[in-house]
This record gives sequence, structure tokens and C-alpha cells, in this order.
Amino acid sequence: MALIVQKYGGTSVGSAERIKAVARRIAATADQGHRVVAVVSAMGDTTDELIALARQITDEPSERELDLLLSTGEIVSCTLMAMALRALGRDAIALTGFQAGIRTNATFSKALITRVEPERILRELERGRIVIVAGFQGITEDLDITTLGRGGSDTTAVAVAIGIQADRCEIYTDVDGIFTADPRVVPEARKLRSISYEEMLELAKLGARVMHPRAVELAGVYHMPVVVRSSFNENPGTIIQDEDAMENRKKVRGIAHDTDVARITIVDVPDRPGIAAALFQPLGDAAINVDVIVQNVSHHGVTDLSFTVSRNDLRKALRTIEPIARELGATEVTYDADLAKVSIVGAGIQTTPGYAGRMFKTLADQNINIISITTSEIRITCLIKESEVERAVRALHAAFALEDENAPDLAPRTVGQV
Amino acid sequence: MALIVQKYGGTSVGSAERIKAVARRIAATADQGHRVVAVVSAMGDTTDELIALARQITDEPSERELDLLLSTGEIVSCTLMAMALRALGRDAIALTGFQAGIRTNATFSKALITRVEPERILRELERGRIVIVAGFQGITEDLDITTLGRGGSDTTAVAVAIGIQADRCEIYTDVDGIFTADPRVVPEARKLRSISYEEMLELAKLGARVMHPRAVELAGVYHMPVVVRSSFNENPGTIIQDEDAMENRKKVRGIAHDTDVARITIVDVPDRPGIAAALFQPLGDAAINVDVIVQNVSHHGVTDLSFTVSRNDLRKALRTIEPIARELGATEVTYDADLAKVSIVGAGIQTTPGYAGRMFKTLADQNINIISITTSEIRITCLIKESEVERAVRALHAAFALEDENAPDLAPRTVGQV
Repeated sequence: MALIVQKYGGTSVGSAERIKAVARRIAATADQGHRVVAVVSAMGDTTDELIALARQITDEPSERELDLLLSTGEIVSCTLMAMALRALGRDAIALTGFQAGIRTNATFSKALITRVEPERILRELERGRIVIVAGFQGITEDLDITTLGRGGSDTTAVAVAIGIQADRCEIYTDVDGIFTADPRVVPEARKLRSISYEEMLELAKLGARVMHPRAVELAGVYHMPVVVRSSFNENPGTIIQDEDAMENRKKVRGIAHDTDVARITIVDVPDRPGIAAALFQPLGDAAINVDVIVQNVSHHGVTDLSFTVSRNDLRKALRTIEPIARELGATEVTYDADLAKVSIVGAGIQTTPGYAGRMFKTLADQNINIISITTSEIRITCLIKESEVERAVRALHAAFALEDENAPDLAPRTVGQV
Repeated sequence: MALIVQKYGGTSVGSAERIKAVARRIAATADQGHRVVAVVSAMGDTTDELIALARQITDEPSERELDLLLSTGEIVSCTLMAMALRALGRDAIALTGFQAGIRTNATFSKALITRVEPERILRELERGRIVIVAGFQGITEDLDITTLGRGGSDTTAVAVAIGIQADRCEIYTDVDGIFTADPRVVPEARKLRSISYEEMLELAKLGARVMHPRAVELAGVYHMPVVVRSSFNENPGTIIQDEDAMENRKKVRGIAHDTDVARITIVDVPDRPGIAAALFQPLGDAAINVDVIVQNVSHHGVTDLSFTVSRNDLRKALRTIEPIARELGATEVTYDADLAKVSIVGAGIQTTPGYAGRMFKTLADQNINIISITTSEIRITCLIKESEVERAVRALHAAFALEDENAPDLAPRTVGQV
């Protein structure tokens, strides 16, 4: 008998029928003798509809009021879920974020959870109840309602699981788990039974849109096991947990790709100290996430500087950067919105040169040009043309034999290398 | 400069355009130098839509969850109203029932306000903000969200006004104020400038659907002046307040009528002690409000007993009463659903026989049969046929010269009578 936190996303609770189906799944978990807390997102497009309603009033709704408005979406879905469970004869109770003890800071629209006060949830569980919690929301010290921003409900679920010391957190979504690559791109992609937090974090960041990175990160810090699985079938899913580093450090676990990439290049910017700060500080102030930064070798005291942003941020980034570039004496600001990132992910990749070599050779064999390269401890990412990215993913998936769970490590090792 | 609580009902905030119009009105009040708290209902049919959503899940939604679900309707409207005010350049803040300190008992779906903790509202007013409060909702000691049932937002407004010691409470609705009779029935009906709580209570109960009786009652207990006026124009409305009894005790102030009446008659019920209790206790337990009760003179140890209920409650009342009537040996249970009540209302009416006489004669002159009569301190009510009620209202309005504010008291006084 375990204490389990489950999370169901907007698609999983998108209609009355879907809510009833999820209620049956929650009830089945409880019938197995487990104690269950379920965190739910707003139904389908509710959040977008509420935003549209606010826009009928004003183009710039105040963040505090918008958060309070949006919080109603998850209140609706959590009450309906509790009703559906009661209709199945189960004792269930719906709790809003504040009732569930989700305390946050006061950064409206992207609040951070500061702590979870678990007393109410634990009391309801003690009474034998199934507890349904409204995801994506919390309350400040001043009793203002906040929303948690992107990935909010995932984060609520993990935070609640940590707060009540659950045995595990289950994230229900519309895919079967974490795959070695996007199955829509690579038909042979294989579902992973297990993956480490760090690897999942790289995959999640790079576009495996299954679970939000901040929730993965939180789970990792507290070593909370997370199972990612489908709410539409009974397949077992993928468990994200602490893994034995010895065994896994020398394996590529997955190929991630991300087409939400735009690149801005500032041409002929003077190569002197302070230039990078002058350019990137304002982007940070505008809350624009800058990714791959590449600075060319300097010629005659000027250089080209390029960086990538998400495509949504492209216009805003250009607006921010163009006056500064002019001021710095750059000749031109250009951009590409037809690029993509492809990555190999696996613990210990960076410390083993063989992986990078195999990756670059695979892309070269496909005649795919690498625009730039970035790496982390457990990842190597190449920026390439968007039109070539699916071919790149398929080729890399095959090159590292990811379709075969028992394939040997395919990086050629140098004798004596650790 | 006054401290004013305003309340806007569902029709007044029924669309984005209406919300903006109400926001301009609130802003205008603030611009006059007043401090304003506005209580809002849910937009138009929101509450019905939420109930329909719950019914898609289950026929019997749990009351606690239904209350939490319905509370979202007023959260939406109060956030939109605050946004609309900010769009007009005013500093405004939306507060849910619990943030506004509305504490209630735990009787879900018809909770009673136990107290208002005014600190947050007062703090926001201190900051120069217009405060928008979600009506119809509160929070229990266990931090569960409740709704206040019928007339909830009116009651919220009056309770907040009392809690923050406002100078007055303004109820905005879709009519111009309290009239001497329903203007749709009596074209000459005159808007009253002022009325007492007791008189308003009788009028409100009897179908002047402008302000809920429980809110009138609450205002009366705390002597909170209430202005009822239209949100669609600038007319001054009617003020409900403590009135000089000396001056008003001898005047008919209005003619009320109510067609939501059904009568049940239990034929040949034994006339012995305990019968009334046996019949009416179960109706009370079933939350059915019983109004006019008439027991005929007994013949041969049996009598006929009739009472009225609201038409909505007719079926339920019949289901409740029929088995009991059979058990008691009554020969038959009959009902009429085509009756109506017509009343004259005014302080001190009951102590002056002249009013009753004029009322009965007026109805007799119209050849309208009186089925039964009930009275209170300030009201005389006749049960008549529904088909005759509008004619009755017009005749009574004319008989007491209510179209003329300065008409003398038209009850023939007996010399020496107080």
C-alpha cells in the first residue's frame, strides 16, 4: 500500500467524459489499497478562454487579477473530478491550491512554491478520502492567489508529493512515457523503463514535452520518484529516479530535438570587453531566455556574435537588441527562424570523446551541416537547419542503436580512458 | 466624502461591455471623492452554466464541491471588474469572499455570514484603492468555500457595509427603485423616495424582486441605509432606512403581489390535537416554506386544512403530505396552482381597521373573491385567483391614491382611535 500523488493534464480532463474516465482510473488506484492525491489542470482550453475574456476588458490585465481569474480553471476541474469520484461511490474532496497548503512567493503569473503545508491533505487522507487538488496555483503570505506559470500543475504535483512524503508521483499525459526519440519522427523509438533526473531534465528542456523541467528539477532535488505514463491506456510508463551512475554513465539514452529555435546574429560588432553584457543584460531584463551563444574569431577588431532564442521571443528580442547594436556600431542585425537543435543525451557523455565523434560523423555522413555546438555534462547539442532535423534524429537514433535496449555502448573507447 | 459599498447584480455585469459600463460608474463615484467597495455577482447565466456542467458529471453533486465550483463565477466577474477599472486608470483590487474576510457557517449552498473581518478591505482602501469583492461566497473556519444561497450578493454587500462601517450600501439593479406597485401592472405606480426596512421586507418577500429579504433584514438590524437604484441610468432610486414612525405609521406605502403561490387542501382531516404538527413538521424537515395556513371550522369532528407553498415546492409538498394525510384518515388532498397573493403594505396598518375595510371593499367592488386573509403588523394579504390579481393591484393602487405622493391618508379613522 503506497501513498501516491497523480497528476492529470488539461487533455486528460478535457471533457465531462474524460473526467469520468480519469475518475475511474483514480478509483482503481484507490481500490488497490493505495492512498491517492490527484492534482488536476484546467479542462482543455479553459485557460486560453479565460485569457480571451480578460482581453475583452483590457489589453493589459493586471497580473494579480489575471492570476486570480486563471485560478478558477483548475477549481472547476478539481470540483468536477471530486464529484465524479463521489458518483462512483468514493469519498473524495476537492481542494484549491490554498486549501491544499501550496504557499508561493508573490511573483504573479510565474510564482515559485516556497513550501507545502500538508496538514489539510493529510487530514483528509486520514479520513479515507481521495484528495483532488487544483494544480497551477498557490497563495502568498498576504493571501493573494498566484499561478505558477508554465509547467505549474506538474510542479504542484511534485511539490505535494514531497510535502506529504508520498512514495511516488505519477504524471499522466497523452504519451506512453519517455522515448529514446520522438516516436512521430523515429518509428523505432523505444520507451525507456527508467531515466535519471538529469537526463530527463535535458530531454524535457529540449522538447520532449511530457513533463516540465522545473518539476523534474524539483523532483531530483528531493529524490522523489516520478512515473510518466499515459492517461489513455494501462501501459507502465517511464520512471524518473536516481540511477546507478556506474552503470548508465556511458550510454546515450535518447535523441532530443527542438524546432522552437530562432537565431539572431549581430554583424561586425566591436570586439571589446563589456559588449556581451551590453547586449545580454537587456535581454535578461526583458525575460528573454538566451540559449546557444557563439562569438566568431575577431578580425580587425570586429566580430560576429550570434545567439538563439525561442521563436516566440524573436520579435521582442530583435526590438530589444536593434537599438543597442546600432549604438555599439554593429553594421547589421540578421536572424534565422528556420533552425533546429538536435541533441544526444546520456549521463557522462561529455567526458567521453567517442560520443561527440560518432555524433558529428553521423551528421556528416547525412551531409548535414552543423551551425554550432554546445555541450553539458550529459548532452551534446548541434544547431542545424530545421529542414534536416528529422533526418538527423533518425540517423542518430540508428547510429547509437537506441532501438535495442541491450545494445552495447557504441562509443569507441580509448584504452585507459575512464 | 463617504464610504460607500455598491452591489451590481448578474444583469448589470452580464457582458464585457456591461462590466466596462459599470466600471465607469464606479470610477465616477470614486471621482466624487468617495471611497468605494463594489460587490459583484456572477456574469449573467454563469451560475446556471456551472450547475449544468456539474450535472454532466453527476445528478447529485456534493454540496461542498458545488459551492466551490459556483464560487468561481463571482471570482471571474470581480477580477474582470478590477481589470476594467485599472484600464480606466484607477487603482483597483479584486478580492474573493475569503480574501474580503466573509466568514460563514458550514451550511453549504445556503451559508449564513457569521462575521466580516474587515482588515484587508480597509487596508486596500487606505492605499487609495477601489475594492471589488466577489459576492455570494464566504469561507468557513475550516477554510472551505461556501455560497450564501439566494440573495447572496445582496447579503454580502450589506454585511461588508456593516463590517467596514460604511455610510451606505447601494444596490444596483435593473429597476429604478421601489415602486408603490409593479409598474408593469400599474402604469401610474410611483417610485418611493424612502421606505422603512420593515415595509421593504414585506414588499421584498411579496415579490418586489429588487433586493433579497435577508439582506433587507440584515440592513435593518444594523440600521445600515440602503439605496436601491438602476445601474442603467442616473435616477436617484429609493432609500431604505429607519423612518420616523409617527409620520409614516398611517399610510399604505405600496401594493405587492405574488403569483408564485400554490395551495394544498387536506379534506376531512380529524380535528384533534397534534394533527397540525403531524402535517407541518415533515414539510419543515423537507425545507418547504409554508405560508398562509387556514383551518376551517370543524364539522362532526373533521375539518379541512389548507396552506400555501411556492409553486416550485408544490410537487415535493404533495409527495410529503399525501402519505401522512392517508394515515390520518383524510379523505382527499387537493391543490390549486392558479392563485395569487395581493397585499397592502405600510407601517401600522394592522392597528387601524380602516385599511382592511377599504381593501376588502375595493376587491368586492371589483367582484374579486377573497379566498383567505393573513395579516402582519404592517401588511394585509388576500389570497385570490391569479387571473384577477393584476386587476386587484390596479384597483387597490387607485383606492389608496398611491400615484399621488401628497395624498392624505385614505383610511377612514374612528375618532379616538390611536
